[in-house]
Amino acid sequence: MTRQVDVIIIGAGTAGLYAMSVVKQQTSHFVVVDQGPLGTTCARVGCMPSKALIQTADDYHNAQRMVREGLLSETPTMQPQAGPAFALKISHMLSSKISERVSGGLGEKLIQGRARFVAKDTIEVNGQTLQAKAIILATGSEPVIPAPWRAFGARILDSEGVFQLQEMPKSLAVLGLGAIGLELGQALSTLGVAVTGVEMAQHVANLQDPEIRAMALEQFGKQFPLHLGHAASLSEGENGQIRVQAGPLDIQVEKVLVSLGRRPRVADMGLAEVGIALDARGVPLFDPTTTKVEGAPIFIAGDCTNDRVIFHEAAEEGKMAGFNGLREHPQRFQRKTPLGIIFTDPNIATFGMGYEAALAAGAQMASATIHTESRAKVMGVEAAMVRLYADPATGRLLGGALISPRGEHMAHTLVWAVQGGLTVHQMASMPYYHPNLEEALFAVSSALSKQCKGGYEGVPAGLIPA
Amino acid sequence: MTRQVDVIIIGAGTAGLYAMSVVKQQTSHFVVVDQGPLGTTCARVGCMPSKALIQTADDYHNAQRMVREGLLSETPTMQPQAGPAFALKISHMLSSKISERVSGGLGEKLIQGRARFVAKDTIEVNGQTLQAKAIILATGSEPVIPAPWRAFGARILDSEGVFQLQEMPKSLAVLGLGAIGLELGQALSTLGVAVTGVEMAQHVANLQDPEIRAMALEQFGKQFPLHLGHAASLSEGENGQIRVQAGPLDIQVEKVLVSLGRRPRVADMGLAEVGIALDARGVPLFDPTTTKVEGAPIFIAGDCTNDRVIFHEAAEEGKMAGFNGLREHPQRFQRKTPLGIIFTDPNIATFGMGYEAALAAGAQMASATIHTESRAKVMGVEAAMVRLYADPATGRLLGGALISPRGEHMAHTLVWAVQGGLTVHQMASMPYYHPNLEEALFAVSSALSKQCKGGYEGVPAGLIPA
Repeated sequence: MTRQVDVIIIGAGTAGLYAMSVVKQQTSHFVVVDQGPLGTTCARVGCMPSKALIQTADDYHNAQRMVREGLLSETPTMQPQAGPAFALKISHMLSSKISERVSGGLGEKLIQGRARFVAKDTIEVNGQTLQAKAIILATGSEPVIPAPWRAFGARILDSEGVFQLQEMPKSLAVLGLGAIGLELGQALSTLGVAVTGVEMAQHVANLQDPEIRAMALEQFGKQFPLHLGHAASLSEGENGQIRVQAGPLDIQVEKVLVSLGRRPRVADMGLAEVGIALDARGVPLFDPTTTKVEGAPIFIAGDCTNDRVIFHEAAEEGKMAGFNGLREHPQRFQRKTPLGIIFTDPNIATFGMGYEAALAAGAQMASATIHTESRAKVMGVEAAMVRLYADPATGRLLGGALISPRGEHMAHTLVWAVQGGLTVHQMASMPYYHPNLEEALFAVSSALSKQCKGGYEGVPAGLIPA
Repeated sequence: MTRQVDVIIIGAGTAGLYAMSVVKQQTSHFVVVDQGPLGTTCARVGCMPSKALIQTADDYHNAQRMVREGLLSETPTMQPQAGPAFALKISHMLSSKISERVSGGLGEKLIQGRARFVAKDTIEVNGQTLQAKAIILATGSEPVIPAPWRAFGARILDSEGVFQLQEMPKSLAVLGLGAIGLELGQALSTLGVAVTGVEMAQHVANLQDPEIRAMALEQFGKQFPLHLGHAASLSEGENGQIRVQAGPLDIQVEKVLVSLGRRPRVADMGLAEVGIALDARGVPLFDPTTTKVEGAPIFIAGDCTNDRVIFHEAAEEGKMAGFNGLREHPQRFQRKTPLGIIFTDPNIATFGMGYEAALAAGAQMASATIHTESRAKVMGVEAAMVRLYADPATGRLLGGALISPRGEHMAHTLVWAVQGGLTVHQMASMPYYHPNLEEALFAVSSALSKQCKGGYEGVPAGLIPA
């Protein structure tokens, strides 16, 4: 017998739970299907434990600042394995709350099992068949580990495995220096592991901007060796180690952290079989302004879209899917201005239009160092910089990139300026409290103000004639 | 013989040096008169050493976080006297650069001595008489210590004396809990001094907003006792201590930090004698949109205005004075949106319209806790909050206040939103990266968006229909 509901939500992660919060304002006839474990990727194995690990690494590092300040005469003996342990503690604290809320709050509306499409509007789960007016697909993603490397067993870690480390390895190679590889690799390096970074591309953190990229390569390269431009191969080494080769690099390490990206969890769900058009990664074709999948009453949200795989975009897509699921004509929505933050030390952030698009659009560009600000000198900042792109005809801020301690905050100020439509002329005349790292934004926006039309001419930078 | 110049700048501090940077683009016939010591208040005895002291206190405190994280099994033995020593080191590093630049760069244009007006356009200094087309008055301010208390000698400290402490006192009373008293008092308390706070008013940090004030009183009151609502009197105590009485309070302490405000340095300059109209504090009447003093070719900038006594306002006034000094008709300028930041832990900030003005204007108000955000849980934040005021007819952000770790950054995001004319509707749909403290701004702006007209109705909070 086929059970009828209004909405089926597949996946009780971030996107699915946001979708549910909107769906339940419209109907009580919905179910949530989750294959477990409950608790979002973010809280269980993603943003939250990684931020906890990074915080311990930052504090480990700050002990050196305490020596510089004279508070300590030497760096105290610390327990580096506290890093993963604290990460695991935070993960448990946050994800247990979420899973209790989900299982307790949903009761019989929660079906723990693996969903498989049998028609465009029908799934099977645990032998039961459910048909719905709308199905919201929010199955998330999982780390990619090439199958041949699984033979190395526990010596191969994915990002989730880092938090399970009982003791710190002496040596570790990080394969893939995107956001996750760079964050975790640096944290482990700070905590005393001999880390070697390997990245196939010629950049880290997917940084397009050459000035910010150069500073990032220099800063991170000072802390641990970075090998760019070659793919890695793995083989058995001596004494149980793994041999890592990548171009001229040939080393042996205790562990290998594979951070080559995440794969949308859309395989083996019967999507192709019921006639859904899929892209090369197996993701249904969909409209990112509505989340609607082509030719089916399916709405797709979160990491399984393989599109904007960031928490706040997943949350937004979840709300959009929940809002549109039961509407006759889906409502189109504006998407947010792009914002990417990498929680390394220093932070890396990109906001608005990327460097290559800005270059192609003929944007004016200017940069300012942040480490030269007086506050940065008190903090002992070695190198930090912000670079902005603006429309030469109006001075409107288009986007930019930065590398700076506490850059996560400045990135919000700047992405708000982009999405809020501010010009560099307006930015140059904003208040900048002293001594703040933000003062560098006066330098860069007043420089750009001179390069773009529409500014206040003939008066000192930062002043607005009444 | 009277020497003729185009411009005389009295005071080589922040305002005077910014004025000079604009003046020297117009004429080389100027002089700078400074009574010494060279180096700005900010770098010598103000913002910079206080930020250094606060940073050591924060790091002292962070050692506890390292215990929470498991990096350390117990708090290490630290040297609290490193706090003032590091502050002094930073002060020397920054102010020696400034004074070298001033004395080296100016050469004979620098006159080290005390200026006295002999006419509205003429001063005497070191026996020399100088007449100018414009005189820029930028003499700064100095800490107020009531004359009768000077009898207690070295047991009485002003804010500048804190950085000179060779060893930490066991006990200290702070009289006056404005920005400076609260910052220094808390830092000394964190560094192990038994601090007692005394404030005549019923608030700290001049906080008007009752919600933010209540949280501030609770948080700071947990760290050291706060006695509000009574003026203090001092007398000789036992064993060389000072007895401090304020209402029911009656204690004896080793040192007393007097932070009752700063006095504009305008006395004994002959201003009244040459016919300048002065207010009750002795400050010439002036137009804050031009810096021009009434009825004289004098322009006034920086702390000696006793008006907006903050570094970035002093810099702006310096530029305005330098720009207007030689103009036939002074140019009027818009002043910046108010921004105040107090670098306590947690930071306190106010931006835009104050609470009382917002209340009188019928503003809608909403607040959100920050300590409930997941990132705050990783950081171990006890209590933090932001409150915003918006125009009910349009949703335009008018102002607000916050208390939060790293609030100095969020304050910039918010003051930019006020000055940039953003609405709470726009703010609710901004990108908020997860996990960031800034996510609390979504909570507060989406709440306010519902309270004000002009929002996107009928769609989930944060979404903008295309």
